[in-house]
Amino acid sequence: MEKISKNILNQVIIPRKPESYKGNYGKILIIAGSTNFGGAAILCSSAAINSGAGLVTVATTPEKFTAINTRIPEAMTIDYFNKQELLTAILNNTVIAIGPGLGISSTARGLIKTVLNNTITGQTVILDASALTLIAEEKIPLQTTAHVIMTPHQGEWQRLSNLPISEQTIDNNLKQLQGIDSKAILILKKHLSEIYYKDQVFQIQAGNSGMATGGMGDTLTGIIAGFIGQFGYSLKTVAAALLLHSTIADQLNQKEYVVLPSKIINKLPKYMAKFSQLTGEK
Amino acid sequence: MEKISKNILNQVIIPRKPESYKGNYGKILIIAGSTNFGGAAILCSSAAINSGAGLVTVATTPEKFTAINTRIPEAMTIDYFNKQELLTAILNNTVIAIGPGLGISSTARGLIKTVLNNTITGQTVILDASALTLIAEEKIPLQTTAHVIMTPHQGEWQRLSNLPISEQTIDNNLKQLQGIDSKAILILKKHLSEIYYKDQVFQIQAGNSGMATGGMGDTLTGIIAGFIGQFGYSLKTVAAALLLHSTIADQLNQKEYVVLPSKIINKLPKYMAKFSQLTGEK
Amino acid sequence: MEKISKNILNQVIIPRKPESYKGNYGKILIIAGSTNFGGAAILCSSAAINSGAGLVTVATTPEKFTAINTRIPEAMTIDYFNKQELLTAILNNTVIAIGPGLGISSTARGLIKTVLNNTITGQTVILDASALTLIAEEKIPLQTTAHVIMTPHQGEWQRLSNLPISEQTIDNNLKQLQGIDSKAILILKKHLSEIYYKDQVFQIQAGNSGMATGGMGDTLTGIIAGFIGQFGYSLKTVAAALLLHSTIADQLNQKEYVVLPSKIINKLPKYMAKFSQLTGEK
Amino acid sequence: MEKISKNILNQVIIPRKPESYKGNYGKILIIAGSTNFGGAAILCSSAAINSGAGLVTVATTPEKFTAINTRIPEAMTIDYFNKQELLTAILNNTVIAIGPGLGISSTARGLIKTVLNNTITGQTVILDASALTLIAEEKIPLQTTAHVIMTPHQGEWQRLSNLPISEQTIDNNLKQLQGIDSKAILILKKHLSEIYYKDQVFQIQAGNSGMATGGMGDTLTGIIAGFIGQFGYSLKTVAAALLLHSTIADQLNQKEYVVLPSKIINKLPKYMAKFSQLTGEK
Repeated sequence: MEKISKNILNQVIIPRKPESYKGNYGKILIIAGSTNFGGAAILCSSAAINSGAGLVTVATTPEKFTAINTRIPEAMTIDYFNKQELLTAILNNTVIAIGPGLGISSTARGLIKTVLNNTITGQTVILDASALTLIAEEKIPLQTTAHVIMTPHQGEWQRLSNLPISEQTIDNNLKQLQGIDSKAILILKKHLSEIYYKDQVFQIQAGNSGMATGGMGDTLTGIIAGFIGQFGYSLKTVAAALLLHSTIADQLNQKEYVVLPSKIINKLPKYMAKFSQLTGEK
Repeated sequence: MEKISKNILNQVIIPRKPESYKGNYGKILIIAGSTNFGGAAILCSSAAINSGAGLVTVATTPEKFTAINTRIPEAMTIDYFNKQELLTAILNNTVIAIGPGLGISSTARGLIKTVLNNTITGQTVILDASALTLIAEEKIPLQTTAHVIMTPHQGEWQRLSNLPISEQTIDNNLKQLQGIDSKAILILKKHLSEIYYKDQVFQIQAGNSGMATGGMGDTLTGIIAGFIGQFGYSLKTVAAALLLHSTIADQLNQKEYVVLPSKIINKLPKYMAKFSQLTGEK
Repeated sequence: MEKISKNILNQVIIPRKPESYKGNYGKILIIAGSTNFGGAAILCSSAAINSGAGLVTVATTPEKFTAINTRIPEAMTIDYFNKQELLTAILNNTVIAIGPGLGISSTARGLIKTVLNNTITGQTVILDASALTLIAEEKIPLQTTAHVIMTPHQGEWQRLSNLPISEQTIDNNLKQLQGIDSKAILILKKHLSEIYYKDQVFQIQAGNSGMATGGMGDTLTGIIAGFIGQFGYSLKTVAAALLLHSTIADQLNQKEYVVLPSKIINKLPKYMAKFSQLTGEK
Repeated sequence: MEKISKNILNQVIIPRKPESYKGNYGKILIIAGSTNFGGAAILCSSAAINSGAGLVTVATTPEKFTAINTRIPEAMTIDYFNKQELLTAILNNTVIAIGPGLGISSTARGLIKTVLNNTITGQTVILDASALTLIAEEKIPLQTTAHVIMTPHQGEWQRLSNLPISEQTIDNNLKQLQGIDSKAILILKKHLSEIYYKDQVFQIQAGNSGMATGGMGDTLTGIIAGFIGQFGYSLKTVAAALLLHSTIADQLNQKEYVVLPSKIINKLPKYMAKFSQLTGEK
């Protein structure tokens, strides 16, 4: 198991080219939120936008549009009950993140299937939270040809892999991941989170227990989406997103007992500037 | 009557264990808010989350979901008119705070009875504001086997105890508390607030008149809920929550004439970090 | 015409007594806002709360409750279409401010008449904005026995007094005020605003053209309401509110080209602390 | 092609006269926003207000009123489906900006025609975003006698001018602009944005790729509207607005990887103060 080096941040977070446009920095679709879990859609989309995503659309229940407009006016919205609008959005975006606050309703199930059935090579699909729970429960096959990233915490991974937490060893995790999707990247969120990809395993050397609070995973998902939109899909991009999230949280935790997701989000532009200005020497 | 020592803050606010998860820091259900008193639900849940609670669900009228999502996206919501959802939430949470901004409608009355009838040993129920008024008016018996904490101001305590403010002496308060609930903790909010528990009385040496503004009690209730979720139910935990609330307010009051609840809430993570980093010597 | 001295601020903004409660700092009812002018209700109530008012209730159209809850959770709300709730609120509050963003609908007209018909000696009624326009247009008599404060800008004063701006001399203003309400305090908002009361005239030595922006008057009304709630109705209290508003704005204007009302509001607690800590010597 | 000098900022952003009122600083009508693009209306109106506009009204779909009230309580709103209210607003305002987040529905089309048919000499119409797309698609003639400013990015300009981006040379742009509207000012938003007016071309020497994010254009439109409201319609005013927007963004970009529109907006009052305090020597 390899440690993820801090150098990855300045390797991935490269300075932007002067002649470039918002279309160059990713079109992100975030399918998130439901009546009882509206905040997750806000945190996830705020994280994507603050991490530099060019254009972010949130597909959610329309009753959440006001909160999203208020908190993050830079985001666009669509009604995820409108199947035609949703299909168009899936087609027009390059990164699709689904799951935060989605709940486990039949609507949520339909949305996941729609994403898996309509994404294609070149796109990236990030499956998080409720999406993972539903995939596990309903044994929904990950049949898309898009890149797939899964971001379970240990309980969600147990549901997906059938591995009790005590048996979530590196070997077992690698083996189970092959059975679920042999090409997917798995981020296993825990104390010192791990990334699994094919036969490789990496471990993050950052993070703290002040992050143990609601909404932290939604935020990570947004950062990953924003990073892939800007820096392209790669293991390195995903690792950098994971590391940045925890690095900011570690800095905050020195002065804050609990690290609120919204505070990490606010710090993204400053930390990214810092890392992009370091020379990328190894 | 014993003074509450400042040492209690670093004794209670202990550093978090590295290997820990949001589930370790409490599942809090806050039953609060009504058409005319929506802000109370926001202040109470914001306080719980900023004090470090792992997971916070607000049961309220759905017309308040947008404001809650906007102000505190880290919180989840449920509709308190949905009896089945409410019962499930009462079952799934360890700390239940009820009362802030609830009003004195028949809905509120039903909610209090539902909480008192469905909480069990091991859970903690915090009764505040409208909940106390209704319990007094309707003589609702506190028949739950959960731990009970009551947080009246002097007017609410008068209604509960039938003691006019002029007769709210230590001895009278102790006696009346025994009649209402012999195992409950009572926080009597006033200039130099007091905590009553069985035959013990403690007095806080903090607080200021800049705190005399709407929403201050809702905020305290949220902090108590967050503390019990993280540090467990005990007299010490409750005393630390009360003291932290006033300690932050005293610091703010040096530079602010009126101490707004939302400013206390914002300072919680920083003050908790400070106290958790002190060694807990007596 | 007397200049208002800066000393008035530390004379009026006195330190709070340690043993005091939110009920000691005023119960304020703000009747404000309508479909198209929702922000005025937010600014006015935020100003009242940040200036230290104990309890603030906003009577408005219910479609504005979400924005008020979100921006200023410390405020309570009532539906001003509910006549019974409104009458109870008029009875239970000591200071009633009416007008900001109210519009000139028949609803607004009804609200003004309800206030003027139902307020009594010991209460204070502040008439601002649309309330003044309607009183002028409909020649509504100011028949309440409550204290009356009017806060027109020059255009509104023209409508009330029938004095074109060019004829708004001190003598004319004094004379016209006697005809409208011989006991009312008039604040005439302009470059170097003036206060008229019986045969007295005072002029403020503060204020700047950066304040020439929407919502500035709504904010002043909230501060006046908050001050009367805390420091009692008097000419001095009103003058101090007016002066504080412009003093903060002058400080902001040194670094900000336009002085937004919401920034003045944020500074209120700090400036009030500063003035309350000066000894009140003349 | 002339470079726009930084001196233009202190020439245009002049100190305000002490005796002046909000009516002196422009009445701005912003026709913006739709169900899926609510944030654009917030960003555009916030920018206008923070740039010093005296009075700002947002005409939008009423479902967005709550978000606007919450984010920018200084703004007023009207329902753009109410044709009578809209016509009155067009008549009463001096600067009308249309397009941000408007979408390309038949409603949007009707709004654009209403603006072009009902504005007159002395008014300024700013056409942005969806408005430009619709004008291109529907070949809507710019038949108003009001001043016209168009703010397309390169893709929108392609639709308007039929010039593919590779053929958008200065000469071609000048020629095409003459065909569309021989008196209009064209701001072509790109890396080093350009201003075209009759036979003149100017280029901005500011801006950065951190600005490549959603909502940036909506913000610029709001600043232009605010500037014309205060400083009058002129090529210089428009150039100063464009330059200020990028100047603030450049300053932010030194410490922030992505420059969020809402952060530029927050800085407007401070930067305008700074430039207004410099002597306007050349």
